[in-house]
Amino acid sequence: MMNELIEYLFIPAFHPGGGKQSLTDGAVLSINGAVQPDGRLVFTTDSFVVNPLFFPGGDIGSLAVHGTVNDLAMMGACPLYLSAGFILEEGLAMETLGRVVQSMAAAAHSSGVQVVAGDTKVVERGHGDGIFINTAGIGVVAPGVDLSPAHARPGDALIVSGLLGQHGIAILSQRVGLQFETEIVSDSSNLYPLVATMLEVCQSLHTLRDLTRGGLSAALNEIASAGEVGMVIDERAVPIDPAVASACELLGLDPFYVANEGKLLAIVPHACADSILAAMHAHPLGQQAAIVGHVTSEHPGVVVGRTAIGGHRVIDLPAGELLPRIC
Amino acid sequence: MMNELIEYLFIPAFHPGGGKQSLTDGAVLSINGAVQPDGRLVFTTDSFVVNPLFFPGGDIGSLAVHGTVNDLAMMGACPLYLSAGFILEEGLAMETLGRVVQSMAAAAHSSGVQVVAGDTKVVERGHGDGIFINTAGIGVVAPGVDLSPAHARPGDALIVSGLLGQHGIAILSQRVGLQFETEIVSDSSNLYPLVATMLEVCQSLHTLRDLTRGGLSAALNEIASAGEVGMVIDERAVPIDPAVASACELLGLDPFYVANEGKLLAIVPHACADSILAAMHAHPLGQQAAIVGHVTSEHPGVVVGRTAIGGHRVIDLPAGELLPRIC
Repeated sequence: MMNELIEYLFIPAFHPGGGKQSLTDGAVLSINGAVQPDGRLVFTTDSFVVNPLFFPGGDIGSLAVHGTVNDLAMMGACPLYLSAGFILEEGLAMETLGRVVQSMAAAAHSSGVQVVAGDTKVVERGHGDGIFINTAGIGVVAPGVDLSPAHARPGDALIVSGLLGQHGIAILSQRVGLQFETEIVSDSSNLYPLVATMLEVCQSLHTLRDLTRGGLSAALNEIASAGEVGMVIDERAVPIDPAVASACELLGLDPFYVANEGKLLAIVPHACADSILAAMHAHPLGQQAAIVGHVTSEHPGVVVGRTAIGGHRVIDLPAGELLPRIC
Repeated sequence: MMNELIEYLFIPAFHPGGGKQSLTDGAVLSINGAVQPDGRLVFTTDSFVVNPLFFPGGDIGSLAVHGTVNDLAMMGACPLYLSAGFILEEGLAMETLGRVVQSMAAAAHSSGVQVVAGDTKVVERGHGDGIFINTAGIGVVAPGVDLSPAHARPGDALIVSGLLGQHGIAILSQRVGLQFETEIVSDSSNLYPLVATMLEVCQSLHTLRDLTRGGLSAALNEIASAGEVGMVIDERAVPIDPAVASACELLGLDPFYVANEGKLLAIVPHACADSILAAMHAHPLGQQAAIVGHVTSEHPGVVVGRTAIGGHRVIDLPAGELLPRIC
């Protein structure tokens, strides 16, 4: 059966026109040409257990591509190759797997990455949950680019690339059967083209972080901790879709903590902030980008929000389990 | 909780002495020095769902390292870096996870690879099974080495590196509560040192294959199909431990179909066969290596066994599910 899966499902999806040997568990990569003399490889991994498998704006297949591609992009790497490891639950409909694989192949194609290595395991009914997918990724960092959470410096500007909270609310509303007047759709997407645009304007970007699990607050806290700096956020400046804001109010959630799958936080030298923002506004993925605050040498490790009513609050790391299995 | 896992479990295990930032979901690799001008990278992935998690001779942690390291080695690549993606079932004892991670770290250390990227997801009770692990691997192929199942040529010798069937029987006996007079222990191990020894003797090796799921018969059939050649096996020459042979008889299994996790099949030019065999015999992992047959231009795609009583049988691809979740 595994041979049939490979021959009739995986190869036509990932290597159209390729022979039976074109998708084995390993691949030889001709990567040397892509690596500059002082260029560096980046290697990442991420497992996806999202529930439900299909949601407004995406599915576990497209998410598994975008998630790993974005992890590479956040390190300043151009994504090149992915591996795909599937853990399937016995009884899974082949049609479901087919839809997921097609979606994964489409996302890989549009993200400019090749799925070059694969593996499939099957577990008994009740010991898995439909489909789990692991993707590992390889990308290449251009010479001169050096992004790290530890590079945030006092005075840096904090830029958010767009409306927050859509992915988490799309998943949760699907899961609990909530319907809103306007459907809230996951923002799952490949952020590398936006990152490339930003790096063209300012190669000395300090830090990039995709706003996945734990949302903006987790990203800010991790970077504050890694860089031993404080963060000040103007809460009114953070772009949030009114529909998401209403849904969060209804569900008792803080949109700063809700996951995104196509939004990033950039920490950039003050001098570059306006030119980077302008470039982001000109890109389809950054039209609603906004400067939301700055890095400070005060209160290192602590993120402070200036609230709408003029007060201050400490924005903590998310506590407890927010939304399980959102990615 | 995830932060604590990373800080108190994963980093001490995989990066002793490393800071909190030393095990993020991605890593920048300084790989260029390791790649020769005409060298190539190899990228593989494998998920592990073995049940039980602990078995004689290993556990899911060591298996997840050896499995991926061996996938790299079978492509002639020196293993360098691994990623590790964990899918944990809610309710898993931390002590169990700790044992698995320690074992994984020990196997990585002794295999000379670094675990440089990690990810952990948690699924609800009843939607996973303790621990699933995905490992992806990156290795480097030396110039001049070019292994492929399609390279098998009529006249080539078939060499098996040691006693077959130990891993599958160790797992199965654990699972069904069978005890044998002498405990049958998994052969789970890193095959790269043996491969390096073999490549030193003969860089023009044609094909290597680890004898995992489906055992020797699956490997032979896949290569026969890929290389459009026939295979002839002298069944009496195939090294099998008497205890494994008895267990197989008891359980109604054919040892040619049982999985191994530390044995390989090499397909080598006839002229090199004796010198390779001698080098294998001098290596701890190849002491019981044996020439078990040859490649033929007759019956392409078909594997024929010469049986102990002088007859012939076709050794088919394994049909149906042999032993689920043995790796």
